[in-house]
Amino acid sequence: MAIATSTSVRLGAAQLEAFIAAAFVTVGVSKSEAQTIAQLMARADVNGSEGHGIFRLPQYIRRIKGGAVNVKPNIRIEREAAGMALVNGDNGMGHLVMKFATEKAIEKAKTAGVAWVGAKWSNHAGPASLYASMPVAHNMIGLYLAVGNANHLPAWGGLDMLLSTNPIAIALPGEHESPVVLDMATTVAAYGKVKTKAQRGEMMPEGWMMDRQGKPLTDPKRSNEGFLLPIGGYKGYGLALMFGLLAGTLNGAAMGRDVVDFNADDTTPTNTGHCIVAINIEAFQPVADFKKSVDALVKDLRNSERLPGVDHIHIPGEGSHAARADREKNGVPMPPSLMAALESLAGELGITPLGNKS
Amino acid sequence: MAIATSTSVRLGAAQLEAFIAAAFVTVGVSKSEAQTIAQLMARADVNGSEGHGIFRLPQYIRRIKGGAVNVKPNIRIEREAAGMALVNGDNGMGHLVMKFATEKAIEKAKTAGVAWVGAKWSNHAGPASLYASMPVAHNMIGLYLAVGNANHLPAWGGLDMLLSTNPIAIALPGEHESPVVLDMATTVAAYGKVKTKAQRGEMMPEGWMMDRQGKPLTDPKRSNEGFLLPIGGYKGYGLALMFGLLAGTLNGAAMGRDVVDFNADDTTPTNTGHCIVAINIEAFQPVADFKKSVDALVKDLRNSERLPGVDHIHIPGEGSHAARADREKNGVPMPPSLMAALESLAGELGITPLGNKS
Repeated sequence: MAIATSTSVRLGAAQLEAFIAAAFVTVGVSKSEAQTIAQLMARADVNGSEGHGIFRLPQYIRRIKGGAVNVKPNIRIEREAAGMALVNGDNGMGHLVMKFATEKAIEKAKTAGVAWVGAKWSNHAGPASLYASMPVAHNMIGLYLAVGNANHLPAWGGLDMLLSTNPIAIALPGEHESPVVLDMATTVAAYGKVKTKAQRGEMMPEGWMMDRQGKPLTDPKRSNEGFLLPIGGYKGYGLALMFGLLAGTLNGAAMGRDVVDFNADDTTPTNTGHCIVAINIEAFQPVADFKKSVDALVKDLRNSERLPGVDHIHIPGEGSHAARADREKNGVPMPPSLMAALESLAGELGITPLGNKS
Repeated sequence: MAIATSTSVRLGAAQLEAFIAAAFVTVGVSKSEAQTIAQLMARADVNGSEGHGIFRLPQYIRRIKGGAVNVKPNIRIEREAAGMALVNGDNGMGHLVMKFATEKAIEKAKTAGVAWVGAKWSNHAGPASLYASMPVAHNMIGLYLAVGNANHLPAWGGLDMLLSTNPIAIALPGEHESPVVLDMATTVAAYGKVKTKAQRGEMMPEGWMMDRQGKPLTDPKRSNEGFLLPIGGYKGYGLALMFGLLAGTLNGAAMGRDVVDFNADDTTPTNTGHCIVAINIEAFQPVADFKKSVDALVKDLRNSERLPGVDHIHIPGEGSHAARADREKNGVPMPPSLMAALESLAGELGITPLGNKS
């Protein structure tokens, strides 16, 4: 989600981390787990996934206070075989559950070649690319699927919102090129983009949403009168359905009518399901060869002849790499509305406010 | 691909199988392998995937005669670990390679829980759903990806056709409901659909193809002046790219500029890459519970309130189930143009023509 930065201050990731960790400690999360969550949330902001970083903190704290999330989870392997594991997140913060699951997948893929780890009784875990990218440092490919935490998508042709924007992320390493990282919702627009348009008083383009008569819905303030549209019509509906069956139903996690709208509900556990697959490149071919092939392909794509008016071919992940390069140096842009929300949260929790408001 | 059936005769799967097998034997394929290929090709027709069944026979035979495909392949496991295998198809017919790979994935998933099997030096293998569906009979979920055998898709914003319609198929079982089977190209339309429109003298809807100025291309006879469009714009480009990296590059198979257009070229091996993942449901939860959950979700989707003018909610795979129910009873519709092509092939190969022309 892009947020206007013109009037924003910039804060370093370390400041965000300290503030986030302090907030979680006040609601009963252990210091070490609070730090783990804070690191992952701040990393989301640094990577340019602002809609999944510190922006979510007030909501996370509200749901913990409402009793919807377990602050002392016993995150554990419930089932296991050579190429898979099923993690029971015990309703802990999704970041903790999915870090645990991804580390397990990486560990298992070292010997099994490929390992698929599912998770149930988890919660919102931030951006999909956060977990898909973790195996990359181990010369592995990461593939992540999740059930979203609010249903904004009906079956194709239907009106009952039984599906979420169920995302997919895939990340893999290049040699000199940055990792190729796809992170996408199966809807044309993620719901966060609709909320941003509403906040800014802007209209949405046709194709993002449809009303209950099947007409384009372009006023984001009327978003509750319609629903998101899947990519490619019935194809995106099919992807959202199948990804939800793999990440939710297969793990015994919520799917379909059982999905809890975590934006509207502060008291009900979501039983969020995700899965992460770690694919050990070395099991298939020498890692160096694979990385060279990725680089060659990326170069061919980037150097492709272009449509009139197009001055750059985009490689999945490069927007995030650019954001990271900027933000690691200059800090994360913090728009005034977000700073105000976090100041209010600091007052409520009795923690030191995020400083540096200029 | 839908083909008009009004003037078509109908032939039983057994007739198609016998004809296909006889054709392959004349070009040097062993009797038992010819029968395996024939069964899979006829199954494609019975399942309603006409564009991937006997329709392809003249092309397959032409490529074997041109030396592009090895009729005596030594299909083998080249690398293996508990959760994966890499199959070298030795440039054999893709049906043989992918049946071998899928059986290997099923066998490994019995103990590993999940098994990912990649294939290189394969060839066109027919519809994606053929292989994704095989694990279902073993109470497993199948997930299949492939690199298409002709590049009709550029990078988003680009003009060089470096990508194919790289499909995904996922299949899983219900209890009383038929299996849910998604089988889709990552482009709005598969290239076969464009060819069908051209054959029928029909125009394409806007959104299928674009010309090199970025304008909609709707005349299928001009298809070589433009390219296919990915679903969801840059998202479908991202999916085609990542699926190609997983099914092609990771396995050491062709991807990007190395993809051979098997429609235009009868002499060059394609080094087609695919992968199949078998997910053993029992490793995650009792199979009966999973199937009940699938049924409940399918019922909720099907019984959903509908948009004005919509009288049925489509569940992925049900078109194929309906085709199968009809064709197992009444035979496969064979349009006159296809019958003529196969009669010509029979003459060329000196085999008994497909009978029953009324």
